[in-house]
Amino acid sequence: MPLTGHNYIAGATSAEGGATFFSVDPRSKKVDDLAFYSATSDEVDRAVGAAVAAFREIRNYPSARIADFLDEVATQIEALGDDLLHTADRETGLGLPRLTGERARTTGQFRAFGKLLRDGAYLRAIINSEEPGQPAVKQMQFPVGPVAIFAASNFPFAFAVAGGDTASALAAGCSIVVKAHPGHPATSEMFAWAFGAAIAAQDFPPGTFSMLQGNGIDVGQWLVAHESIEAVGFTGSLRGGRAIYDAAARRPRPIPVYAEMGSINPVVITQAALDARAADIAEGLVGSITLGTGQFCTNPGLILLEESPASQAFIAAVTEKMGAAPAGVLLNETIAAGLESTVSQTAANPQISVLTGAEAVSEGECFAYCNTVMQTSAAAIRADDRLQVEHFGPVTLFVICEDAADLRATVDALDGNLTTTVHAEDDELASIGDLLHQLREKAGRVIWNGFPTGVAVVHAMQHGGPYPATTAPGATSVGMNAIYRFMRPIAFQNVPDALLPDALKDGNPLGIMRLVDDVYSTGAL
Amino acid sequence: MPLTGHNYIAGATSAEGGATFFSVDPRSKKVDDLAFYSATSDEVDRAVGAAVAAFREIRNYPSARIADFLDEVATQIEALGDDLLHTADRETGLGLPRLTGERARTTGQFRAFGKLLRDGAYLRAIINSEEPGQPAVKQMQFPVGPVAIFAASNFPFAFAVAGGDTASALAAGCSIVVKAHPGHPATSEMFAWAFGAAIAAQDFPPGTFSMLQGNGIDVGQWLVAHESIEAVGFTGSLRGGRAIYDAAARRPRPIPVYAEMGSINPVVITQAALDARAADIAEGLVGSITLGTGQFCTNPGLILLEESPASQAFIAAVTEKMGAAPAGVLLNETIAAGLESTVSQTAANPQISVLTGAEAVSEGECFAYCNTVMQTSAAAIRADDRLQVEHFGPVTLFVICEDAADLRATVDALDGNLTTTVHAEDDELASIGDLLHQLREKAGRVIWNGFPTGVAVVHAMQHGGPYPATTAPGATSVGMNAIYRFMRPIAFQNVPDALLPDALKDGNPLGIMRLVDDVYSTGAL
Repeated sequence: MPLTGHNYIAGATSAEGGATFFSVDPRSKKVDDLAFYSATSDEVDRAVGAAVAAFREIRNYPSARIADFLDEVATQIEALGDDLLHTADRETGLGLPRLTGERARTTGQFRAFGKLLRDGAYLRAIINSEEPGQPAVKQMQFPVGPVAIFAASNFPFAFAVAGGDTASALAAGCSIVVKAHPGHPATSEMFAWAFGAAIAAQDFPPGTFSMLQGNGIDVGQWLVAHESIEAVGFTGSLRGGRAIYDAAARRPRPIPVYAEMGSINPVVITQAALDARAADIAEGLVGSITLGTGQFCTNPGLILLEESPASQAFIAAVTEKMGAAPAGVLLNETIAAGLESTVSQTAANPQISVLTGAEAVSEGECFAYCNTVMQTSAAAIRADDRLQVEHFGPVTLFVICEDAADLRATVDALDGNLTTTVHAEDDELASIGDLLHQLREKAGRVIWNGFPTGVAVVHAMQHGGPYPATTAPGATSVGMNAIYRFMRPIAFQNVPDALLPDALKDGNPLGIMRLVDDVYSTGAL
Repeated sequence: MPLTGHNYIAGATSAEGGATFFSVDPRSKKVDDLAFYSATSDEVDRAVGAAVAAFREIRNYPSARIADFLDEVATQIEALGDDLLHTADRETGLGLPRLTGERARTTGQFRAFGKLLRDGAYLRAIINSEEPGQPAVKQMQFPVGPVAIFAASNFPFAFAVAGGDTASALAAGCSIVVKAHPGHPATSEMFAWAFGAAIAAQDFPPGTFSMLQGNGIDVGQWLVAHESIEAVGFTGSLRGGRAIYDAAARRPRPIPVYAEMGSINPVVITQAALDARAADIAEGLVGSITLGTGQFCTNPGLILLEESPASQAFIAAVTEKMGAAPAGVLLNETIAAGLESTVSQTAANPQISVLTGAEAVSEGECFAYCNTVMQTSAAAIRADDRLQVEHFGPVTLFVICEDAADLRATVDALDGNLTTTVHAEDDELASIGDLLHQLREKAGRVIWNGFPTGVAVVHAMQHGGPYPATTAPGATSVGMNAIYRFMRPIAFQNVPDALLPDALKDGNPLGIMRLVDDVYSTGAL
């Protein structure tokens, strides 16, 4: 199918507006000649209206039917073939190996939610039987309604039009309107085709999925302000996420915003760990910092060490490796300009020493920035919150702590993050517990002797954390529990079995795990 | 112990401010002569500081230790004896039978959370074992940190200083600062004694609990704006709840607000139900509307009927009973004035007919308002959202729908509510499913052939709903799941067993229910 550059609204293409933008190859800065049409407010309204109509149908579909649809989406994404990979590579510069892996993760997410739905326990069915003076009360999770989703630039598959927010919202039983990221509009359009094919194949209402293009803030603001949108999923910058959060909070009827935003993912390395395996840690750390040209929300951007010769040697080793590593391609001009701006501001702080980088790549024909290592003191970090800014790219900042107490005080002063990491040795287990508790308070995930990049898509994963990592620290955007962002509990009091969803019927016809009179059971009442 | 009128901060009384207010007996409007001191911003800061210090201790207490503390709180509330009942009765006019029942519910809530904690499954432990290419990931729920709680006026026990928000936040492992309601300051102070005794008996840190008095908005605003507060629980008016929500959203670091606010709890009664049991429904309805002088957030304030002679007869019967029922005592002057104001505004709407009431009680020496019944058309409700305002008191509004389609269109136009109710007959089961789905979208709880007042404190209860019923439709303020408002998941990646909480250790030493590699199990790994 040839690309159209149009929006995709409830099964049909639409290009009513006059504002257009273009796809850019980040390796050559070459601008493609196909115009993409930013959605108009009428188009936003039409997409949401179709989502409302679709939701009235799908809110009553059994989980198994939604599971079939999710599997179909995965199949249809695969049916796009390698064209999808080449298109995304041309728009993002991420390379075919990474994109091939990311596609597998993306289809895997849809199938994993399908499996979750067939298992049925995700509905969290809870039943309290009637007793003298107490009615029968039965609750389970239901979809919240039409959801707005904002695609990210750095994962054109796994956090974008067909990303985790989309998969979890559809799995919840919601209809969705996706605001595509302007960094990869052609890739986004191809995903819209896949959703269209899946909707046709599984006979879902067309308004289940719409995709809107746009390279300004208007489309997103219209979408979040629309009275029929019930929740928002967002992955992107702190600035963008906060703007969406504020817009939703200002509505006459506020709605929840699940924004996954900035994170600097602090890493603490003990002296014993350096003594035992400094070279291994340095190699792993540089790999994690430069992975995907550092464009990961889990990029390790802050390394805390106690002052010592071993620490100085470690910093020197990391600096050398960072300086020697080739500069990668950045996703787009906005990210390149943002990186240059944030690093320049940090480097200009008198408390900062630049060890390598902190300058633009010379003679570059692609979007790029030098791998950068900076250093500061623990006291400086505690005194100036601006030093906890995210540098979205291959950049890290070493923080030298005078001693263990200085390090602990600095951990207490950290902002919220997606992850915190500690490298330590087995013979420190008895003494390091308190530090681990401190690190726990600052993040959604605590990593032991590893690196924060790489987020396993498993049930136990928590990809979230206190603000500014997210706007909703109780939620996750990776793993099966991501579905609960788009569901809410509803209780039924004395409602006859015939009117209840199968998950709540006395006989438990689905055979799912339920909490019945405070005991977990897969049996009938 | 004699009442002091002071704030209660981390185990000590404090009265630094110059602003005072007084307890008023709503039956006589008599002002008591003990001055209560509104907290100052310094006192707010001191209470939150103590809560931060306490949280660093209790965040690592095992669930069983917290359970013992919750049980102790219940015991200490009982130890206050009948003085508590008489004090609350004098401040609220709710009467000893109601307050005796509410006290049992209140202590029952603490003990129910104790039971939940000892069972352990509430921690939602999820484990994914290490596999090739995938780390070991283990998550569970942890307390969020210091929590601010706003007490309600209408449940001086069950939704106030020792109410459900307090019980669930302490059960979660959080420390709390409670803003007491100025309608019952003496009752609030007595509860502070009980918490102080429980803290001493169980050797908890004093900052676990503080209670601040205040009869303006300052104390609450200072509390919500405090940088160390991590979440807010609120029960009260839409106006008050929205102000708290807005203040929290404006913070540099926004925090979640769980506000349970207004609700009109729509009730649909079918013609078949009227034919079968009009008299019973009328009696139940009037009982529900006038219970506690109508001062329930689940008060049935909107009744939808199809136009018919049976409906007219039903409305006449309800109106007669409402007119004949004695006017009850209202809690305080603010509620009395608010009720008069909202009913007057509604009654002045040309689309409204007043059937009875809508006027102040004459020669009243207590705070009171006439039982009120009004009527309007479905078209009027759809056209004017102001007709969905909550009248907090013994007031209901009948909505006459032309036919079933008109009724269904009106249900679609309803705002969010805590509850929706349908009265129908068994032979309508085949046809009424769609209406039930519609009603489900508008509420947190759907009631069949019952009345919305009376909220069972059971695991399956959902006391919440879409805005404006609450600011967080995924949360509940009654029942065991209320605890999750004050917890968040944290995942541990490859962290050694020795550093993990018992709930996540491989051997499952607590023997709790966990989700291990996607299968529920109480066994070891």
